[in-house]
Amino acid sequence: MGEAPPPHGHRLSSPVKGARSQARLHPLTDKAANHRLQAYETAVKSSFDRILPVLHDLAGLQRDKGFIGKAQALAEQTLGFRLPDHLLNDAWIKGLDLPRLHAACLFETYGRMADGFFAHDPLKGHDTREFDTFLQSCGFHLMDVTPCADGRLAHTISYVLRLPFGAVRRRSFAGALFDVEDTVSKWVEVEHARYRAGVPNTADAPTRYLKTVVYHFSSRNPAHEGCAAHGSDDDAAARAGLERLRAFRQAVENGFCCGASVALLLIGLDTDTDALRIHVPDAQGHTDLQRSLDTGHIYHQTLSMTPEAARRHILEQVRRQAPATPDEGMVTLIARLVENNLSQLDYVVRRHDGTYPDQGHAERFIGVGIGFEEIQLRNLTFFAYLHTVEEGAADLDVGCRILGGLNHPHGLPIPVVIRFDYHGQVPGARERAIARCQQVDRAVTERYAPLIRDGLLHRLLVVRDCDTRGGLERVATSTDPSGRGGH
Amino acid sequence: MGEAPPPHGHRLSSPVKGARSQARLHPLTDKAANHRLQAYETAVKSSFDRILPVLHDLAGLQRDKGFIGKAQALAEQTLGFRLPDHLLNDAWIKGLDLPRLHAACLFETYGRMADGFFAHDPLKGHDTREFDTFLQSCGFHLMDVTPCADGRLAHTISYVLRLPFGAVRRRSFAGALFDVEDTVSKWVEVEHARYRAGVPNTADAPTRYLKTVVYHFSSRNPAHEGCAAHGSDDDAAARAGLERLRAFRQAVENGFCCGASVALLLIGLDTDTDALRIHVPDAQGHTDLQRSLDTGHIYHQTLSMTPEAARRHILEQVRRQAPATPDEGMVTLIARLVENNLSQLDYVVRRHDGTYPDQGHAERFIGVGIGFEEIQLRNLTFFAYLHTVEEGAADLDVGCRILGGLNHPHGLPIPVVIRFDYHGQVPGARERAIARCQQVDRAVTERYAPLIRDGLLHRLLVVRDCDTRGGLERVATSTDPSGRGGH
Repeated sequence: MGEAPPPHGHRLSSPVKGARSQARLHPLTDKAANHRLQAYETAVKSSFDRILPVLHDLAGLQRDKGFIGKAQALAEQTLGFRLPDHLLNDAWIKGLDLPRLHAACLFETYGRMADGFFAHDPLKGHDTREFDTFLQSCGFHLMDVTPCADGRLAHTISYVLRLPFGAVRRRSFAGALFDVEDTVSKWVEVEHARYRAGVPNTADAPTRYLKTVVYHFSSRNPAHEGCAAHGSDDDAAARAGLERLRAFRQAVENGFCCGASVALLLIGLDTDTDALRIHVPDAQGHTDLQRSLDTGHIYHQTLSMTPEAARRHILEQVRRQAPATPDEGMVTLIARLVENNLSQLDYVVRRHDGTYPDQGHAERFIGVGIGFEEIQLRNLTFFAYLHTVEEGAADLDVGCRILGGLNHPHGLPIPVVIRFDYHGQVPGARERAIARCQQVDRAVTERYAPLIRDGLLHRLLVVRDCDTRGGLERVATSTDPSGRGGH
Repeated sequence: MGEAPPPHGHRLSSPVKGARSQARLHPLTDKAANHRLQAYETAVKSSFDRILPVLHDLAGLQRDKGFIGKAQALAEQTLGFRLPDHLLNDAWIKGLDLPRLHAACLFETYGRMADGFFAHDPLKGHDTREFDTFLQSCGFHLMDVTPCADGRLAHTISYVLRLPFGAVRRRSFAGALFDVEDTVSKWVEVEHARYRAGVPNTADAPTRYLKTVVYHFSSRNPAHEGCAAHGSDDDAAARAGLERLRAFRQAVENGFCCGASVALLLIGLDTDTDALRIHVPDAQGHTDLQRSLDTGHIYHQTLSMTPEAARRHILEQVRRQAPATPDEGMVTLIARLVENNLSQLDYVVRRHDGTYPDQGHAERFIGVGIGFEEIQLRNLTFFAYLHTVEEGAADLDVGCRILGGLNHPHGLPIPVVIRFDYHGQVPGARERAIARCQQVDRAVTERYAPLIRDGLLHRLLVVRDCDTRGGLERVATSTDPSGRGGH
């Protein structure tokens, strides 16, 4: 977020500030991890937050003699890159196109952030061995998580749950309503790999695929800052998530022989504090919507304990929350998620006095398509996972309403990154990913024609070979001289 | 096709009529099958061909006293069903809306045809045991065929190749350019079933997935009646098909361990005669575009032989066409396809003097979505397999151009059946299939707004549980009183 208050978006100051940031850390908090995560978040968010002040300076300089040289020097010094010449050249005649320049800077910043992420793995998300082994010891061979597509949940894996993102499948959907058929396909793919290649373990190992839904709510402003897809109704969000989970399990059980099944886990996230509400299932796989474990309570209960006592207390509490006989593997996994989350609660305490200043939306851009593994930060990106605008129009409209609400009052455009990852080992896959970007860009251009005409929506088209650790390939952008995206 | 010349579409009379229909049948022709297939084709096509004459009669009667009673009697007697009352009630005031009535009759005829198909299995397409066993004995556990989406190839499985449709996966695409990623998913699904359930055989059986492409050309009018997607250029069609096949094989080989691979087969179809041009691959899986076996030649070479001699000759010819060492399993399979096709050549000889009167397009409707297993007849349906109009717009535009060219000059609308099959055992799948129909209908309504406004494009929305032998579930139709489709 940087130090200065962000220049756009509605931010509420925390209603409860206090002495908590002076308090000592929780005995189970991983200080080193908190430092590393904070350094990364600060670096990335401040790189976005530096854009507007630079543009402000440029606006003041634009009719000065030697403007282009000054502008490029300022940009290189402050942002770390040069601006596109064609956006500066005629500023002395027609004035700077600041909205377009803003989009160009944002896209460049995003691209650099993504490339750096894949080159340097700043969150150590590819160190998956320890967690893979642990997960299997709990009786699961893959953890597949669907958080809501809301930008306030984009840090769920790497921050809130403190899991290596490379070990977890993430598929965000509005309202956390994941696609059952797509998830069954993924389940088949994973089973096939177990049978054929013994990856991540052989098919005869008694482990299951674990599907997790993370719905969300707001403890500070429950009626307005909860999940938009469920009308800020926590109960509805939890119920819908559980229904979808059960539909997935039933689809697997009905569709495949030999006792095929999956494990399910429902979690709620308080987007104000990052505390979790975990609905512990029992050994029969039953989840009770009325019973849950609140990591905020656990935090306070264990704050003065020794680490060993705190861990024992967590295990007991988790076990007690199961509706009937607990599943010991599930208890062990959840206890670890609780412990991990305590570090995040301290992170929010230290950085924000326990509650985020940006209670509401403050995303910087909309991410449309398939990919975005590099997005592991809160309130950076509104996701619209989709193959076509026709299917994903509802999510995309929500994203445009949110980003339009944040940016348009200031005259800034909605930045949309259209992105498709592909498997480079499949012949023609790169070309199809590029064509897919262009197709989605055409559909976006049609759907939001008035915004685009007025310069209030810009697009960057990128693809990435997800079989490598390489960065993004830039296909096209509407900030280019042609002014068109990829078509 | 019925007896009378069809009332719409451009039909060329056969340039070579002759004594062939008097000639004796080929010694390998399956007479019983030809009778059964002919009875089915005649019954279905004549049910469509009876619509226009009835409408013609109604047009003459529409201002008569007692019109509604007469109309319903005529419809029941000739078409086998009553017409929607709301399309008759005000005829004496505003005249019959004949285009809409035409669409309503066509949709009803289609629905009855489909329901009958699933209820009675007239083509015995579910008797798959013998072919499954034979296919495995040739070294393959699934035959997956992509013909071009052109209506002149819709009978490829049941007529041209004489295979039980229940034993073959069919996915039609314009230009036969199938989706590599989707086919890899299907390959994984099949491998998984072999590992988990031993279906259709266990994973250690040394059999492969066989992917087949059927491109097409016109021997009578090669420059105009070939494949539109490849500009009626046979070589381009064959080359593109082979490229796509190789891409699929490479995707499997690169993406999976332990020597994973698939078998490939490229076939050309002469849409005038139903003769095949089979590019026999060798044991190394190499296919030569310049070498092929023409079943029309084989027909003539073997016409006077005993069945045993003819079979020996076919085997020899197939073996000789392999570029290098033949793969004996593939040779055996292809020899069977050749023999099967000889029956179809006789079928075309008997019915049409060896060459179809409808050399060009003469489809009755466009089939949009996923499903349509019941469409096994030539020139009945133009397929646009798609999940969204955004992805499938190109195919759909081709279909609308074709059907518009056939129907609009006569003032008749383009009938579009929007259809999604679903797996009833997956919770919520039916509701999602219905929602998908409605979504595609909305997109069709937007894309073809002027045609729809002028009553020149009508839609029927149907879904079907493909885990059962049940028929279609009708969701909505634009011929209903509301005049809207499903939204």
